Parts: sequence; structure tokens; C-alpha cells
Amino acid sequence: MCGIVGVSHHKEASKIAFLGLYALQHRGEEAAGIVSYNGSETHVLKKSGLAVDNFDEDNIRKLTGHMAIAHTRYSTTGSSTTKNIQPILVTHRKKTIAVAHNGNLTNTEELYAKLENEGSIFQTSMDSEIFVHLLAKTPNGDMPQWLIKVFAQVKGAYSVVLLLKDCLVGARDPQGFRPLCLGKLGDGYILASESCAFDMMKAEFVREIEPGEIVIIKGNKLESVFLPGFVGESRAFCVFENIYFARPDSRIFNDNIYQVRKRLGERLAIEHPVKADFVMGIPDSGLYAALGYAQQLGLPFEMAIVRNHYIGRTFIQPSQFLRDFRVRVKLNPIQDMIKGKSVVVIEDSIVRGTTSRSRIEEIREAGAKEIHMCISCPPIKFPCFYGIDFPSTGELIAHNKTVKEVADFIKVDSLYYLSLEGMLSVMKEKGNFCSACFTGKYPTQIPKNTDKLKLEI
Amino acid sequence: MCGIVGVSHHKEASKIAFLGLYALQHRGEEAAGIVSYNGSETHVLKKSGLAVDNFDEDNIRKLTGHMAIAHTRYSTTGSSTTKNIQPILVTHRKKTIAVAHNGNLTNTEELYAKLENEGSIFQTSMDSEIFVHLLAKTPNGDMPQWLIKVFAQVKGAYSVVLLLKDCLVGARDPQGFRPLCLGKLGDGYILASESCAFDMMKAEFVREIEPGEIVIIKGNKLESVFLPGFVGESRAFCVFENIYFARPDSRIFNDNIYQVRKRLGERLAIEHPVKADFVMGIPDSGLYAALGYAQQLGLPFEMAIVRNHYIGRTFIQPSQFLRDFRVRVKLNPIQDMIKGKSVVVIEDSIVRGTTSRSRIEEIREAGAKEIHMCISCPPIKFPCFYGIDFPSTGELIAHNKTVKEVADFIKVDSLYYLSLEGMLSVMKEKGNFCSACFTGKYPTQIPKNTDKLKLEI
Amino acid sequence: MCGIVGVSHHKEASKIAFLGLYALQHRGEEAAGIVSYNGSETHVLKKSGLAVDNFDEDNIRKLTGHMAIAHTRYSTTGSSTTKNIQPILVTHRKKTIAVAHNGNLTNTEELYAKLENEGSIFQTSMDSEIFVHLLAKTPNGDMPQWLIKVFAQVKGAYSVVLLLKDCLVGARDPQGFRPLCLGKLGDGYILASESCAFDMMKAEFVREIEPGEIVIIKGNKLESVFLPGFVGESRAFCVFENIYFARPDSRIFNDNIYQVRKRLGERLAIEHPVKADFVMGIPDSGLYAALGYAQQLGLPFEMAIVRNHYIGRTFIQPSQFLRDFRVRVKLNPIQDMIKGKSVVVIEDSIVRGTTSRSRIEEIREAGAKEIHMCISCPPIKFPCFYGIDFPSTGELIAHNKTVKEVADFIKVDSLYYLSLEGMLSVMKEKGNFCSACFTGKYPTQIPKNTDKLKLEI
Amino acid sequence: MCGIVGVSHHKEASKIAFLGLYALQHRGEEAAGIVSYNGSETHVLKKSGLAVDNFDEDNIRKLTGHMAIAHTRYSTTGSSTTKNIQPILVTHRKKTIAVAHNGNLTNTEELYAKLENEGSIFQTSMDSEIFVHLLAKTPNGDMPQWLIKVFAQVKGAYSVVLLLKDCLVGARDPQGFRPLCLGKLGDGYILASESCAFDMMKAEFVREIEPGEIVIIKGNKLESVFLPGFVGESRAFCVFENIYFARPDSRIFNDNIYQVRKRLGERLAIEHPVKADFVMGIPDSGLYAALGYAQQLGLPFEMAIVRNHYIGRTFIQPSQFLRDFRVRVKLNPIQDMIKGKSVVVIEDSIVRGTTSRSRIEEIREAGAKEIHMCISCPPIKFPCFYGIDFPSTGELIAHNKTVKEVADFIKVDSLYYLSLEGMLSVMKEKGNFCSACFTGKYPTQIPKNTDKLKLEI
Repeated sequence: MCGIVGVSHHKEASKIAFLGLYALQHRGEEAAGIVSYNGSETHVLKKSGLAVDNFDEDNIRKLTGHMAIAHTRYSTTGSSTTKNIQPILVTHRKKTIAVAHNGNLTNTEELYAKLENEGSIFQTSMDSEIFVHLLAKTPNGDMPQWLIKVFAQVKGAYSVVLLLKDCLVGARDPQGFRPLCLGKLGDGYILASESCAFDMMKAEFVREIEPGEIVIIKGNKLESVFLPGFVGESRAFCVFENIYFARPDSRIFNDNIYQVRKRLGERLAIEHPVKADFVMGIPDSGLYAALGYAQQLGLPFEMAIVRNHYIGRTFIQPSQFLRDFRVRVKLNPIQDMIKGKSVVVIEDSIVRGTTSRSRIEEIREAGAKEIHMCISCPPIKFPCFYGIDFPSTGELIAHNKTVKEVADFIKVDSLYYLSLEGMLSVMKEKGNFCSACFTGKYPTQIPKNTDKLKLEI
Repeated sequence: MCGIVGVSHHKEASKIAFLGLYALQHRGEEAAGIVSYNGSETHVLKKSGLAVDNFDEDNIRKLTGHMAIAHTRYSTTGSSTTKNIQPILVTHRKKTIAVAHNGNLTNTEELYAKLENEGSIFQTSMDSEIFVHLLAKTPNGDMPQWLIKVFAQVKGAYSVVLLLKDCLVGARDPQGFRPLCLGKLGDGYILASESCAFDMMKAEFVREIEPGEIVIIKGNKLESVFLPGFVGESRAFCVFENIYFARPDSRIFNDNIYQVRKRLGERLAIEHPVKADFVMGIPDSGLYAALGYAQQLGLPFEMAIVRNHYIGRTFIQPSQFLRDFRVRVKLNPIQDMIKGKSVVVIEDSIVRGTTSRSRIEEIREAGAKEIHMCISCPPIKFPCFYGIDFPSTGELIAHNKTVKEVADFIKVDSLYYLSLEGMLSVMKEKGNFCSACFTGKYPTQIPKNTDKLKLEI
Repeated sequence: MCGIVGVSHHKEASKIAFLGLYALQHRGEEAAGIVSYNGSETHVLKKSGLAVDNFDEDNIRKLTGHMAIAHTRYSTTGSSTTKNIQPILVTHRKKTIAVAHNGNLTNTEELYAKLENEGSIFQTSMDSEIFVHLLAKTPNGDMPQWLIKVFAQVKGAYSVVLLLKDCLVGARDPQGFRPLCLGKLGDGYILASESCAFDMMKAEFVREIEPGEIVIIKGNKLESVFLPGFVGESRAFCVFENIYFARPDSRIFNDNIYQVRKRLGERLAIEHPVKADFVMGIPDSGLYAALGYAQQLGLPFEMAIVRNHYIGRTFIQPSQFLRDFRVRVKLNPIQDMIKGKSVVVIEDSIVRGTTSRSRIEEIREAGAKEIHMCISCPPIKFPCFYGIDFPSTGELIAHNKTVKEVADFIKVDSLYYLSLEGMLSVMKEKGNFCSACFTGKYPTQIPKNTDKLKLEI
Repeated sequence: MCGIVGVSHHKEASKIAFLGLYALQHRGEEAAGIVSYNGSETHVLKKSGLAVDNFDEDNIRKLTGHMAIAHTRYSTTGSSTTKNIQPILVTHRKKTIAVAHNGNLTNTEELYAKLENEGSIFQTSMDSEIFVHLLAKTPNGDMPQWLIKVFAQVKGAYSVVLLLKDCLVGARDPQGFRPLCLGKLGDGYILASESCAFDMMKAEFVREIEPGEIVIIKGNKLESVFLPGFVGESRAFCVFENIYFARPDSRIFNDNIYQVRKRLGERLAIEHPVKADFVMGIPDSGLYAALGYAQQLGLPFEMAIVRNHYIGRTFIQPSQFLRDFRVRVKLNPIQDMIKGKSVVVIEDSIVRGTTSRSRIEEIREAGAKEIHMCISCPPIKFPCFYGIDFPSTGELIAHNKTVKEVADFIKVDSLYYLSLEGMLSVMKEKGNFCSACFTGKYPTQIPKNTDKLKLEI
């Protein structure tokens, strides 16, 4: 996952972009960057780590200009060196090309081979650099035709923002895997992965960029073109954005995430009603489903796990000693609430199962009499080729364990998953989601070579 | 406020102390330090900023020894230079004296004058250094007598931990303003400001140190003595710890904070029941009272404000530009929930009123139809001399404004405070609290000179 | 100017390369880099500032491998950003290409235009990057033919070392403007700008790389090829290396620099014998000519100016206040030696004249009765297009001032320059030097566009 | 050794003090500090490492005030932690006391015991802190009497500058072990360890502070008092300052160091004339004696060893690998000069012998036919208690080796030391020097306890 932002036509574009990074920090904690353009000069700032920690005002102030794009990185391809921080920025024939990309391409190998054979030198190990070389190689007379020729060559998941000549460009792949929203701030337009970024900037949500759409923004004018041949193509929005990844205050895929998650909890309560003293959620994403679950059943909702707001750098790369304490330091169950009680614990999803097991262990040590766990999505069994960084297939606990075996592994008294139909039934865009991580049915051809490795464990 | 930790008899004492800092980070974000002692050598680590960010494993590993004390600082006296980071550590006659202190002394001026006239040189501007000089000046044959002679000379609020010769010492002033808890980990004892620190360390809560008690821990032995002449003295626990400062998963002053806050909300609902579509709390400390309020009245509870977990350094000393966006970046109301709704907003307290006004403005901009605000304590009107860093009296909005005027200032449709009696009635240690910030009735003599300045605005 | 090093076939190649940077630090203080290769992986370290300060052992240790190239930078083209630190390193078709270059190309503009039109994206603003793109564009079956095709396209001054597949390559332009020496260390070969690097490494000096020669070193085998069509071409060694730039302990252009400079001083004494109490040189490069001058005339030689070995970073970008003191802090005349004395001051060259004026002023303030200045080269009047970073032509004091006017400007009692013939007569390779900075007669076509700008002031 | 500076009555006192540190950097490379005072506020800057590298303009600019003292540290007592950087600065009864000290006290243990028993807490492990506590303990009505009472209690070597109330104070012990010079800059006075500091500041040398003298400078007024009872006491200037430590452009102990060292070389030539092809000195301190030696005998003087001006941080704490190369990287003999020659090598002194052996080995590897070494002082056999940081006595090669054995160890063809009488005969203050490191005859009582340890190996 990654977060992307684009700002046009604002006298402090880089500061607005920085507010966008603040809002989208959850989409990538590894590194971040901003590129600004003032009509003649381009400025860039890139840092490892959290943008909110490492970008200071003095540096942002140097990013002058009325246009900016920004990126916050969660590595899926490319190693974690400085050069692999986006936006990617090059100067070609004295013009700036800058790219920020969220998603994963699926025909990467073919494009690498072709470009290098023609003499292109890749400077990063990110698939996103392919956009830059295609832009440099493709004749660039007419802007819409240039962009259509470029995007027609790439396959897979991409929501992307570009600084190109004097234009801000936004584009979304024909399946629409990743979100991309359009906002308005004063005279200018904003592009952002999630609408919560507009709230931060005090900008207005306009609409989502359509799958297959390219918007070209120049000054206060917006032109929209579509990739030809994709009209009516089936869409494949990432359901995991709704379940876990996006912020609860965002509106994407035509829905509000907080409300979607409460509805998942309500549906879970209908499918799996459990009798208990109270309902609690694993902070933060489990809280909303827990609230929906409790309200649906009329059970008390308690915030019986305290989240520590100070999870600092020390725990980012901890030794074994600190790792042993990590779960508890991050989330501490309140003994005075839990002792002797029968509880329903709501979690958004289970990936490896190890984290859930640790959390359940903590709740058990706090004195819970019975622990019933309800998950607000089905079992995750298959890898994602579109940008979610799941572990290798063999590490997905549900890949070759039954629900009963998973329950035994994480040591709960009972375990319930939401059904696939139940999950999709509460989404507004019901039929338009990719559920491949639950079903293994991929909406596009998947990359050659990688499939065996990933699919057969 | 500050947080203090002491560890005895653990082979990785500094790591345990560091876990304590993690748990107590909320008690002081300005700086932190750890002193360890291995029987022959003393090691120290001090850093500005958050311990959780700035203390790395390599540095902590160098703090060898089976004993350690630690401190996290929230400046109340002393400027913010490196030398004003605790624990204070000196070597005197080849013995280590190390001190970590939470609270404020009230006879500071008298003690400074006496000590300097006798040739003592103060190295810091913290009142806590007085303990060190008193220890160096006082004949130190018998440990309990030595400590009683030292503590008998200081007045005011102090919970303190010391490394002294081969002992870990903990002491609490006779009124018991600040909490200090005793835990057990393996063979050894732990001291910590709040019991949540024991959860982090997987230590067991034993009891609270009594007001006026001094505990001397050597190896796995604990000796307890009391300051003479204070038996039956009235106690003055800080009620603001319960309302706002302590962590919800802590047990101090004989109560669990989460439950206290829920009871404050329930009592608030009884005193001031409001009809509305739902109840929401200002994260985090307002959430618990909001839950109590909603459950008492049977109203829906919604988490309609999202707290951003990434409030980084950039916003710590922001420019005007970023300051304008600060409230919203930190706490974002969910428009899809609030639009057109009548809401009850629960806040733990109002100090200056400016923060509340900003938050209410944000909720209003998210589309709330009616906003009714309920505060889970009475109006704060007077300064604290015991360690809570309120602004100058004139800046306390309730000091010379009526409730109606405060409501107008923060622009709510209605505003209700919990009564003093209501507040105290839900505490387990009802009669033992200091409520001076609400009433102006101080339980001790207050410092000369400062009273006029602070009290008359 | 820049310094370059190449190491083949040594188990700690990067450490050997680092010793080379130590020896060649005087050739570039702005930045430095090392690239190592261990047969499968490539490692790189680049830092602004002095290599000797900023490269620490821990970092060098990570540069594993038996081959390495290194570069120390003195900017002549390209701005001073991190990306403009050499060696330039790219991965192309999974192979490493690394380049370190000393000199300036003269057909840069033509090559830039051609390459960008074909889609190449330049990542730096250094002309040296051209080598990389030519290497990527040119079919690379047979190594010698590949390299000859690449080097045949570039014109101007270059001594260059490359890491290419499993080979270390060294090449020198057909005129041989810049030095490049071949050494032997154990089984392997070393390439370095100056032979003093071999002393540091305890390597053996073998010979200089010939003008127009390309050496391809694989393991312990060396193959030599020559650019066709340049046999018998006239050479153009940079005489300024001998006068000022190279280290006195180096042997380049078939001569030892210390001895060349002493001979320049002896010749100066023959051309311009001055009667005085003693002879002193401006440290360090003036000292050797001063010693030759004094020995030739039988005058006492005194080291009457003390060079401060601690010219730290503070003076690198000083304020006006510190700048006022800079000359004296760097070089302090000894009053007790100079007071009331008539002195001959030997300087290697005069560029702007401002430095010499300051130094003479210092000597005058130390009490000198008479100051006679002798310069061990002719007046510098023209710009260099081959890598010496002279100021713009108008700033060269001798460009439009007579010797008398220069003497007046720097305020000496008399001023003497060595003659062109005298200078060349003491060189072993008499007829093979470029003297364009004295005569304006350039041995190659100079770059279009830049000539007017630079030549007409 | 250490260097100290004091500045009074200059509007940019800290910058002037910084220039003094530049000049005195050779007296201590370990750490440095500046304290300034502007009549009401005191500012301080302390850094590990070289002042010239680590003090930048921005930081110096913050040191406002018309008075300043500064110190550059070469550790002799006290470990190398930040707190052991001078000037020592405390605030006592709201007044600043700041101290910078060069030398070693000899009654340290007695003073420590007395002060701690009275309750003083030492913050550093430097004997210099004793001055601070004595100042705080001693009634301070009349400034001269106060200072006389303080200095009367300490014994040993001290040149010291103080900031005290509104005065700059300088004092030198009655034997005058360490130099301390008085200069004038505009209306104000300067104090500095060596007169070369005045050259840097463009200040005028006035005179040396007398042994046993205390100068109290207030504004542009200077008052001088003497410690009673020391009139006519025999002096004990450190001869090692003349031989090795001081800068050649300094005038201390009533002599110019460059000329003293040339005279040592001349005297050495008279005592030990050697026939050889030429004379060379080990840079830098050996060069001056070499020049005197060569001139006396009419032999050619050659600078046949090149000193690398870039000995950076990497070599400060090198690994074994770099250590093996250290000597050569620092000082490289010129093979083309030395090969096949018979040479006289002049060195200022031999301490352990290991450095000389390495250097001789390098000269031998450069091809020298014969190497004759002459040392411009007698054999060093005893420890120094007055501030020179010799190794333990057993490590002094001359402590229990004959001249012949030393010659064998360092592998020279012949070795000659200057005689004690010869050395002292060329000093202007002949009878006033301490020669204890050559003779073991100490001019004061030496510290108890330490003598056995140090003297018996």
C-alpha cells in the first residue's frame, strides 16, 4: 500500500501536500516524499521513516511552487534504500517528470526487458519507474494521446499522480483496484488516495476518479479522458481497503469506512450471535465492527483494551527482549474490567494468526473467563498481486487450516468468520469488489514466474 | 507531572525501567532518563523528547546492572535544558546518589537560601536537586534515620525514587498528592507512578506506597518506615489524576481509572441528562465518561471523531500555517456520522477553553445540528502548586467567566459541568482528595511570593 | 580536478581504495565515493566533504569485495548535490557499470542532445555520466571493441576508471591531459591519479597509463589496447599539475614533483636573482621552489610562516568576521624572524591576486623591511577547459594587468615571474605540456558557446 | 596540556575567544568550550573534538557578551565525557563562576577529602573543579583577598582564567610551570596560553603574567596582585613547551619558539656533527632544529618527508588495518630524494620510541643508505606531574635503556641526544626551567600515592 497526493493551483502547494501525507500516513510508514513545481523550478524532499516525524517546516518551506505531488511508502517492490522513495523525479529534455504511484503492476518483467534492451537505465528497483521511462520514450506532442499511449502499455493496479510540464495528472487503472479521490480547494484541484486527506486540508470532496480515467489539470481547468477499450469492463475494488486499510473517516468506493465497518459488525452479529458479558474490539480497526456487533445484539460495548499512543522507534526494530513485551506495551487489557468475565472480541481480520494469538493470551492473562472471537471478514487464503503486502501464502494461517484449527492455534473458546456473501452484502458497490485473497479468483492475469512460488507456498 | 520508576534485583533492570517509561510516557513528553547501578558502576542515559523514540536498544544495553531508576519529564520547574533531565545523578564520597522526583516542593526558596549560604553549588534549576544536597549534607550512618532527617525538611508534593548506596528507596509525601505504586517482579520489587507500568513489565501489583511512607529495598528485602508526626494527617490525593492525567488501565488511589471515568460519566448523566441522537467523547480521556453517560441514559455511543495516531514532531513546534490545521489533523470528525445530527459531546475538563472551542468548531463544520457539551468535572478556577502545570490563573477560562459565558465562548448549544459533590461521590477514597483547583482551598501552606502573582491573575 | 583510484584483486579492495583517497584528498575536498564489487554484489559509499573525515571504518567494512573504484571530487561541472558525487553507479541488464572520471569533456553538448533524443534519462548534471549512457547504448560483446567504440565518441580531457562486468578498466585521453598511474599490489593492479597513492598502499609504481591507452584488468591479468588513429598525436600534459596541483611525493609525467618544483626555484633564481636577508616560501607548494631558489643563490632559507594544521570546517563557509581573520589563522608569519628584514617570498602562482595580497600584507605587518616576490610560473591569463577550475577570465589578475600593475596590486617591492621557456626547460617531458592557461593556445577544439563567455571576460 | 583564553571588553568577545582556540588547538584536540558573559546572562558552548571543526558560526553567534573565556582540552585528569569539558561553569548565589585551567594540581587528594566532608558535590572528575568549590566556600567580599585566599590553598601547576562577577581574572602558579600571556586588543585585555593567539586576533603582545601573579581585569582596568610569600621563589618553566609543545610562532618564557628550536639544532650540530648527503627533520617540530643543524654545518636541508594535511577522523580511532598504514599516510618520505642517500634525521624528542621506529622504517623503505638520528633534547626518563601527559614511566624507552639500546630499537645507524647543559644553554631563561622529566628532580613535592605507581613502572 501507499498513499498519494496531488495539489494544483495553491500558493503553498507543498504544505497542502504535507497535510495530505499526514492524513495518509497510515498507508505507508517506511518513507515519504514531496515534489513541488513553481513554473520554472522543481524542488524535492524525501526522507525515510514517518513524514510526520521527519519533514520539518524549514524543509517544507523550501518546496516552493503552486503544484506538488507527494507519496508515502509502504514497500511492496523495491528494497528500502533512499533511492526507492517516491515521487520519482527526473529531468528530461529540460522538463520535469515526477511520478507517485500506489499499486502493483503485473506485466513488469516484460516491460523491463523491452526498455533495457533499448538502452534505458533504471535508477530504482520500483516498478513505478516504468512510468517514467515510458513517458520519456513515447512522443509527447498531444498530452491526452501521450498519456493514453503510456498507460495502455501497463497492466495491473495503479492509482498514480504525475507532475508533467505544467500539468497535474491523475490516473486510475481500468479495474480501479486502488482508490483515488478528487477534491477542490479554492480554485484548484486536489487528488488523494482517500477523502480523509481533504478534511485535513479543509478541501471539498468532489468525486472519485473513475476506473480507467485520466484527469489532466492545468491551472484551474480539468480535462478528463478514458483509456479506450475498457468501457463496461468489470471493476475490482480492493475489499481489504474497506475491512482494514482505509481510515474510518474516509469515503472511498462510494461508502464511508466507519459505517461500512459498523455494518460488517452488525452482519457478523446476525450470522454469529454470541452470549457474553460484553463486547470489545481490538483497537483500532476492530472497534467499529465491535460497536456494530454490540448495538445489534444489545450487549454492552467496553473499551477494555487501552492502546498506547507512544509506540516509538524503539519498537520498530526491537531486540528479542523488547519483542517479548511488544504486544502488551501496544495494547494493554484492563484487568479490573476483564477479570472473571465472558467476552466477545472483535478483530477485523486474521493474517498469520500470531498477532491474534498474542492478543488473546494477554486478554486471558487479564482474567477473562471465556473468550469468543469474531472476525469481520472471511478467512484470508491467497496472495495479493495488486498492492497489499500479505506474507507468503504458506504463512497465511487460513491457507491450510480449518476454522477449528485456527481457533485452537489462537486459543479462543470459539471463533467465527463473517461469510463472503455477508461481507459483500453490506458494501454499497456490492458486485464491484476484488475478493481474490479469500477466493483465489484473480480479476486479471497474474504475473508469470511468481505464481508458483506464491501460490504453492 | 512526571513519571517515575524504580527497579531492584533484576538482571536487566534498565530494560525493565525502560518498559516503565513506555507505560508512563504520557506523564512527561519533554525528556527522560535512566540510571542503572550494577553494584560497582553507575550508568546513565538522558535524552530530550520522547523516551520511546529516542532511547534505542544499543544505548539501553549499556546501562548494565540489577538496579535502575527512571524518570520521564513534564517540566513544571526548571528550564528545558539537558541538565534539567532527571534522574539527577551525583557521586559523593565515591557513592552514587540518584534521584527521580514527581511533584512540586513548596518550601523551595527557604531551602535554596540555606544550602547556598553553606557553600552548596546547584547544577540544575529543578527543585528536585534539593533532595541531593540534603542527602550530601546530612550525616548518613543509619539509612532509615538518614532518610527521615532528609524528608522531614521538605514540604509539598513528592513521590520520589532514589538509588542510594546499594538500596532502592521510594518515598511519598505525607499528603500523598502524587501516586506511587509497589510491584513485584520475580524476587525483586518495582516502584512506579502508576500500576499500568507493572502490566508492561509483567509484574504483579502489590499495593500503593502510603502517604508519609519510605520504603528501603535492598536485594529482595523491603523495609518500611514512616515520617514521624504525620499519623492520621489528612490526605490530599490529586483528583486531576483520576479525571485526566492517569492512564485508564492504571489502578491508583485505590481505584481503576477506566471505571472511575465511566462512573463520572454515569453521574454526569444523572445530573445532566440531555436528549440527542447519540453521545460521543473527545478522544481519548473523554471516551470513557461518554461511554458511561450513554449507557446510563440508553443513548447510542458513537466514536464519531477519529484520532490520528501520527501526530509527529512537525506539529510539536509548528508555524502558524500548520497550527491552523492542528486540531483537525489530530482529531477528525466523521461527516457521514455527524451531518444533521444532535449530539452530546463529553470532555474530561476545560482549561483555557481554546482547545474545546476548536473541537466544537470542527464538529459544527462536520454538520452537527445541535451540540450539547458535558464536562466530567467542575469548573477549574485555581492554580496547582503540587505539580499540575495549569496556565496562569488568568488564562483559566472558568476563573472569571460564568458557565453561560464559557458556553458562549466555545459556542455550544448547552454546557454542563459535573458538580464537586457529584465528582467526589464516585471516588472510592471520597474524603481524601485535593480539590484545590476547583475550590481554592489548598491542603498545605502555599509558597510565599508566588501566591499573589498566580492567584490575582 | 579530481582524484581517481581503482583496485583489482585484493581481498580488502575498498580499504585499499580508501587509502588512495587519503593520498589524493588534495585533488578534491568537496565529496568522495567508493564503489566495491565482490563478484556478485556491488556496494557504494558516498559522502559530501572530506573522505578522510566522513568515511568511517564501519562503513568501509561494509564495502566488501576484491575490486573497487573511488573518486574524490573538486567540482568543475555539475552542482554540489549528493547525486553529483562519483563514482557514478548504475545497474543495466543486471550488470554493474561504475565510473570515476577526472577531467572535462569538450563535446558535451552534442552528446547530451543525441542521447536524450533517443530516450536516455540523465540522473546527474556531471558530464561524466555521458560515459555511462554510451556504455549502455553501445553493443557490448567484445570488451576491447566495446570500450574503443565508447571512448572514440568523447573529446577533451579524461582519465577514467571503470568497474565493468568482472573487469577494472582504466583509460586516458589521447592528449593525456590528466595523469593516471599503474601500480602493483600483491597479485593485483592499482590505478591512481598520482603515484603517491601507491606509497600509502605500500604498492609498487609500475608505469603511467599512456595517452590514448585503455587497460582492461581481470583478476591478475592486464590487457592494453589503444584508441586507433592517435599514434604519434601530440601530447598535452597539464603543466599546472607540476606547478601546484600534484603532491610533491608523486611521480607523474615522468618526473618527481618535489624535484620539479625545486628546479623551478633554481631556474627562477637564475632568471631573477634578488639580494635579501633570507628566502621564504608560501606553504606548502611555495616551499620547494623557495628551497631551490635559496640553494641556488646561497641565501638562508627560513620557514618564517607557520601553517596552522587545524583549518577546520568553521572556516570553510565563514561569516565576514571570520573571513577577515582567515589568512592569518591559516598562515602566521613569525614576527621575531621577519621584523626589520629584507625577504624574498616564493609563491607557486598568482591566480586572482587577492590571496597573495593578503599574505604579503601579513608579512608586511610582521615587520618586513623589503618584500620581493618571485613566482615559479608565468602569468596565468586564460581559462582551462580540461579540468582546472580557474575563475572566470576577467578575474585572472594577469589577464589584463602588466607585471608592474600586479606588483602594485599585491603591494610588493618587486615581483618576478618565471619565463615560459624557463618553466618548460626544467620539465623532463619538455615538449609535451599544455601551456594554454599562459598562452591561450589550446591543444584541442574548445567547447562551442562557452568560449566567448569565458575568453572575452 | 590545555590551552586557555580570556577576553575582556570586546563587543564580540566569543568570536575573539574562538580565534584564540584556533591558535591554541594544538594544546588540546579532545574537546573545547567557550563561556561568554554580557553583564547579565552567561552563555556556554562545549563540544567534543576539535573546536575548529565543531564550533560553527551559528553557535558562536549565540555566545553574546563583551567577556569570554575559552579552553581547549588535552585530557590529563578526568575521563573523556561531556561533563569534563572546560570551562567549568556554575551559578552560585545568582552569580556566574567560570574557570578554565591549564596544568595539574599536586595536592588534589587532600582538597577533595576536605571539601566533600563539608558537603560539596563534585560534578566532574577534573582537578580544576576544586577552584570552583574553593571560590564558593571562601567569603568573597574583597576580590583580591578572596582570590589570594583561594589560590593559597592549591599547589602544583596552574595557569588559569576565570569569569567572576564582572571581572576577567588570570592567575599563574608561583613556579610558573605553564605559560600565560597578556595581550591588548583595542581598549580591552586578552589572556592566552601562548602569544600566537594574539597574532590571530590582531592583538598586541604586552607581557607574560608573572609566576605567582593574579590579574583582575574589569572593563579596561587591570589590577595586579601577587600571592604573598613567593617572592624570590625559584621558577620552574616547562622546558618541554620549548622543545615540542608550543607553536613556533609563539613567544613564551621570554623567547621565540622557532628561534629556540633552531638554536637547539645548532647546538646539536656542535655537540654531534654528522657527515651525510643532507639533513631532514621530522615534520613539524623537528624541521626547525633540522634547519639549525644544517645551517650550522653547511649541509643541504631537504624537506624529504611530506606531511599529509588531511589526517581526518578516520585515523583517530582506527582499526588494525588502518593503523598499519597510519605512519605512512601521515608522513610520506620522497623516494626520489632519499634513495641511495646518507641522511641525518632530526627529531625533537623520543618518548616511547615506537613512533620513531616506524618513521625510520619508512625512511629505510624509501631507500636510505645510512640514517643518523639526532634528538634536540636529552633522554626522557621520568613522569611529569605538572600537565604533560607522558605514558607510564615503564613505557618511556629511555627510562631503562641505554642510548645504544634505544638506537637498536629504532634501528638507526647512529643516535645522538642533546646534552642537558647544551639544551639549557640556548634558553634565554637558562636557570628557570623544570627539567624533571630528564633528571627526576622535581621542583615541588609530588602527589602522595601516585609516586610509587608511576616511578617504579
